Amino acid sequence: MSVLVVGSVAFDTVTTPFGQATEVVGGSANYFSVAASFFTPVRLVAVVGEDFPESHLEFLRSRGVDLQGLQRVGGKTFRWVGRYGHDFNEARTVETQLNVFAAFAPKIPEAYRDSDVVFLANIDPDLQQDVLGQVKRPALVALDTMNYWIAGKPASLRKTLSQVDLLVINDAETRQLAGESNLARAARTIQGWGPRILIIKRGEYGALMRNGQDWFALPALPLEGVQDPTGAGDSFAGGTIGYLASVMRFDDATIRRAMVYGSVMASFSVEAFSLERLCTLTAPEIRVRYRQFQRLAQFDGPPEA
Amino acid sequence: MSVLVVGSVAFDTVTTPFGQATEVVGGSANYFSVAASFFTPVRLVAVVGEDFPESHLEFLRSRGVDLQGLQRVGGKTFRWVGRYGHDFNEARTVETQLNVFAAFAPKIPEAYRDSDVVFLANIDPDLQQDVLGQVKRPALVALDTMNYWIAGKPASLRKTLSQVDLLVINDAETRQLAGESNLARAARTIQGWGPRILIIKRGEYGALMRNGQDWFALPALPLEGVQDPTGAGDSFAGGTIGYLASVMRFDDATIRRAMVYGSVMASFSVEAFSLERLCTLTAPEIRVRYRQFQRLAQFDGPPEA
Repeated sequence: MSVLVVGSVAFDTVTTPFGQATEVVGGSANYFSVAASFFTPVRLVAVVGEDFPESHLEFLRSRGVDLQGLQRVGGKTFRWVGRYGHDFNEARTVETQLNVFAAFAPKIPEAYRDSDVVFLANIDPDLQQDVLGQVKRPALVALDTMNYWIAGKPASLRKTLSQVDLLVINDAETRQLAGESNLARAARTIQGWGPRILIIKRGEYGALMRNGQDWFALPALPLEGVQDPTGAGDSFAGGTIGYLASVMRFDDATIRRAMVYGSVMASFSVEAFSLERLCTLTAPEIRVRYRQFQRLAQFDGPPEA
Repeated sequence: MSVLVVGSVAFDTVTTPFGQATEVVGGSANYFSVAASFFTPVRLVAVVGEDFPESHLEFLRSRGVDLQGLQRVGGKTFRWVGRYGHDFNEARTVETQLNVFAAFAPKIPEAYRDSDVVFLANIDPDLQQDVLGQVKRPALVALDTMNYWIAGKPASLRKTLSQVDLLVINDAETRQLAGESNLARAARTIQGWGPRILIIKRGEYGALMRNGQDWFALPALPLEGVQDPTGAGDSFAGGTIGYLASVMRFDDATIRRAMVYGSVMASFSVEAFSLERLCTLTAPEIRVRYRQFQRLAQFDGPPEA
């Protein structure tokens, strides 16, 4: 089934210890869409300005991303300038130019309203709330957020969270949102506010899920060729939610498998700047890397006495 | 088979957000010995002063720890005073009183010289080197070290590493030792200096192993009741190396299983101050927690096309 994503499409200028990329295509919904498109059709709701290249939109269409919900308006596309040091788990924002994103009001096309799976990428929780008002009973609502909204719009975020099944968030944000330094207790607290499934992104350490009372932890693959972590979290969400939408089952074993696909997509995403690596990726490469994750995490049971 | 450990036995004064413990028994070789004793007999080489309680030595003997190599000398036992904030991965040393440890010269008793497995806990690399000169051809030499020696005695440490099979080290130290911020490349660099197996401790994120060209990653169990991370790394090493000494096989599958035992011991160790939790631990509790790690890390293969 299709997955509906609402979020940003942007130009990123990124500096890492391994190089720089200037005004390359990025944005949460963009990374998400490309990653998810390897598993299922995607419906994209976002806004771009007059300066956004038609060639990238053509690429998205070629990957099965429906752009009926993409607004193109007068003005400049959202721009983000960021920098990473040797600690790739933390980006430093140098500059944000909201441009056309400042007035973004997500409008869900009629044809998208029956979407079974919805991913609300990291935008204002009031807009996330508004999107949920425009869709009919999705089977799964997943949401990402960030420290900016946790600190700035806590009440609005809490209200939106009460309608969410699956929250994707990083570990520092989990602690901040719950106001609790112990991660396990923080996760339990947040579950009490709505989301029965929490997926906690930990960058180079992998991802952790709390599903009901059950924990799952998946390490990240150690990579020698990491270039740029921008979009890793959205690529992870795209692989995870895209796979779930493709099978339309949400049991624990299926979500675990979906997280492996998410981690596979993130591991490719960081190997190049922007969407470069995802743009050339093939299904056989995804299968090979899934097997690498299996090998990475595999161990035997205790010996029989 | 027996495992020989050389390291510190100390009094720790520790403050965490959850409480304080004053002059409680600690020290790398102490944590290691108790954790390893659940799997195999232990031979302990260390030094204590006149003030060290006989009752704790009696406890060690009751756990199968041979104390022939424990020197008791005039003066006060090594003391460490440390403090943790909410980030349990980093201890702040408030005070170190070396006391009798300042003049520690490890003397390996004749009966210990045939030890098949040797663990050199975190002490001066010159002393670690000296110990290796006193033992006959062990089947496995494992070593721990820290930033203090990496910065202060790099040449000596490099020389000792050339005689080591298995290095246990944390991730920041791995980067520091190799002078390389990419962890995967750093691990490969260090392997070139001697140790064919690197086990990288990552605190609440678990542990990572590079064995030859193969990676294994084991997440840590999310725990709601963490009290004190002191000794977690040594408890991990004790469970890991103790299990290896008990089976005397060093193939990849066996080391993976050993790391699960190590993680089990660390997960218990942090649930109370000092050695309190390890002192009351039972074999059935270890089995149950091993199964929790299996459940934590388990996922299915890719679906068949």
